[in-house]
Amino acid sequence: MTSIYNFSAGPAVLPQAVLKRAQAEMLDWHGSGMSVMEMSHRGKDFLSILAKAEADFRALLTIPDNYKVLFLQGGAVAENVMIPMNLLNGKSADYAITGSWSKRSVKEAMAIGSINVVAQSEPFTYVPDFADWMLSEDAAYLHICTNETVNGVEFDGLPGAGGVPIVADMSSHILSKPVDVSKYGVIYAGAQKNIGPAGLCLVIVRDDLLEQASATTPCVFHWKQQAENDSMVNTPPTYGIYMAGLVFEWLLERGGVAVIEQENIAKAALIYNYIDSTDFYINEVAEQNRSRMNVPFSLKDEVFNAAFLADAEKHGLLQLKGHRSVGGMRASIYNAMPLAGVQALVDYMKLFEKSH
Amino acid sequence: MTSIYNFSAGPAVLPQAVLKRAQAEMLDWHGSGMSVMEMSHRGKDFLSILAKAEADFRALLTIPDNYKVLFLQGGAVAENVMIPMNLLNGKSADYAITGSWSKRSVKEAMAIGSINVVAQSEPFTYVPDFADWMLSEDAAYLHICTNETVNGVEFDGLPGAGGVPIVADMSSHILSKPVDVSKYGVIYAGAQKNIGPAGLCLVIVRDDLLEQASATTPCVFHWKQQAENDSMVNTPPTYGIYMAGLVFEWLLERGGVAVIEQENIAKAALIYNYIDSTDFYINEVAEQNRSRMNVPFSLKDEVFNAAFLADAEKHGLLQLKGHRSVGGMRASIYNAMPLAGVQALVDYMKLFEKSH
Repeated sequence: MTSIYNFSAGPAVLPQAVLKRAQAEMLDWHGSGMSVMEMSHRGKDFLSILAKAEADFRALLTIPDNYKVLFLQGGAVAENVMIPMNLLNGKSADYAITGSWSKRSVKEAMAIGSINVVAQSEPFTYVPDFADWMLSEDAAYLHICTNETVNGVEFDGLPGAGGVPIVADMSSHILSKPVDVSKYGVIYAGAQKNIGPAGLCLVIVRDDLLEQASATTPCVFHWKQQAENDSMVNTPPTYGIYMAGLVFEWLLERGGVAVIEQENIAKAALIYNYIDSTDFYINEVAEQNRSRMNVPFSLKDEVFNAAFLADAEKHGLLQLKGHRSVGGMRASIYNAMPLAGVQALVDYMKLFEKSH
Repeated sequence: MTSIYNFSAGPAVLPQAVLKRAQAEMLDWHGSGMSVMEMSHRGKDFLSILAKAEADFRALLTIPDNYKVLFLQGGAVAENVMIPMNLLNGKSADYAITGSWSKRSVKEAMAIGSINVVAQSEPFTYVPDFADWMLSEDAAYLHICTNETVNGVEFDGLPGAGGVPIVADMSSHILSKPVDVSKYGVIYAGAQKNIGPAGLCLVIVRDDLLEQASATTPCVFHWKQQAENDSMVNTPPTYGIYMAGLVFEWLLERGGVAVIEQENIAKAALIYNYIDSTDFYINEVAEQNRSRMNVPFSLKDEVFNAAFLADAEKHGLLQLKGHRSVGGMRASIYNAMPLAGVQALVDYMKLFEKSH
């Protein structure tokens, strides 16, 4: 095997230990004689996998008993449609735009119902001061994206939303640190960044919010129906759930998200400190909103972009190209990225700086 | 490993050769140093996997150039919602009910628009004579389920629908035999029976039908937008697509679906002939509509059901329990089930009959 570090923003690097276990169990899960992919979702083997995945996920985030956990398909983009279907209930909702993903959430939700944009950063390099947010007292919910994957902008706190439930897209930093779930009405996350393979979306929803779905919401998109059927209104993405469960076990074995957070702080400091020490590389995100997971940066002289990426690949540093919409570079350093990978990247960045 | 045969209706048995290859490539796909699960869906490695999967699928079913192939999430149940969103176009649609799944398709579609039930079998043991179908000349489409997984009812022909496009749910028998795609407007199939893991749904759609979507169709459910974006309006279920691609390669190596069809005919004959030779086991499906993929059967004396299933497990014959809604037994004998597996089942059925 080529020795590499994979900085993809998602689908993204998974723990080697998890992949090795999936490899070992591929043809025969726990003596069942079957691959997890071949199991009926209603059989006792898969039901035990699902139950353990949910229990471990609840333990990792200390999810209170009055929240349901759903394992759905469609990723965060489909969830952007399901949120207003399940929550608007004839009212309108508040949305904050702090980057490409929250902007897209607004676009998707506007096809379903009435949406107010209550805060907007320009450019996408900071979270607007909460004091300036124009919140509606009677909004069905307030939607935020607490970590913007494309722009590398992470919330460093929460707005005071009164009794309005906060709905948070945490796709790209869920499980990177402890979260007080009780401060949110809904947390959702596409799996393909910090959880597992693409094709799975986790939704954490407070019980009382299950009563607000529009009557025309199709059953597969209807949170209450999914909650009442253990996410099996339709066949769930069974293998993705199994892989997510292996990642949860790996996180618990490492000591949980409080331990992982310390590693993530160290990894982020390593690369941001280096970027700040030179004018060869630039990250323009406000210091308090710099994402620990996604580090976009540009070269002072963009003429070197292609050379930077090509040489990086030769050093085994892969998928560093920035998102199509912003260009430049982006290093995604999720839970599964070891400190050694970030060190290798910084070493390479220094080397490239010296030779250019 | 325990030596078993897995008769699950879905998620279902996969070819051992495919699972072994996925196992070998789990940590390092073709020297990339990455698992397929870790690859950006927009990177050249995954794009090559997607392109090959589509090309092989097109080759297997001889899909004409004026049809698009989409790789979507949500399975057939979500597709039941997307079909009217994409095709109704202010009109109504005709639906035939020939089993549990087509009945459910009607229920899902009625939440979206105007649906006419034009044929209905009672009980679900046959396909009503096409001459009796009350087709509408101006229907947006005619929906059928060409193989009913729960009831084991398979179409042995197609109704003459005039210019009305036929939309067919082929989830549980796609790739089991050659199909003249040009006779259909849309063919769709959840992957978890004859294609790969759960969480992927393939849609084959004729180009001209991409122009009929309702203006409010969300982008992830919008076939035309998915077609224009190579199924990447949102992150596709990348690992499921990879696994489907391996299954397609396996089918091509075996000689394609015409060869597979002969094996399926032999497998189905083996079990149906035995059932017909005794009154201990019963299958009530009309002979011309007996599914080659899903063989439901009941014991003459249902008091033995639990013993039959428990003893079957001891013989390594797994997941034979019938669907919750119909009870009894069901043997799903998809492409990946070898003739030896069906022979083992029939041998066991004979043994059980003798001892009871």
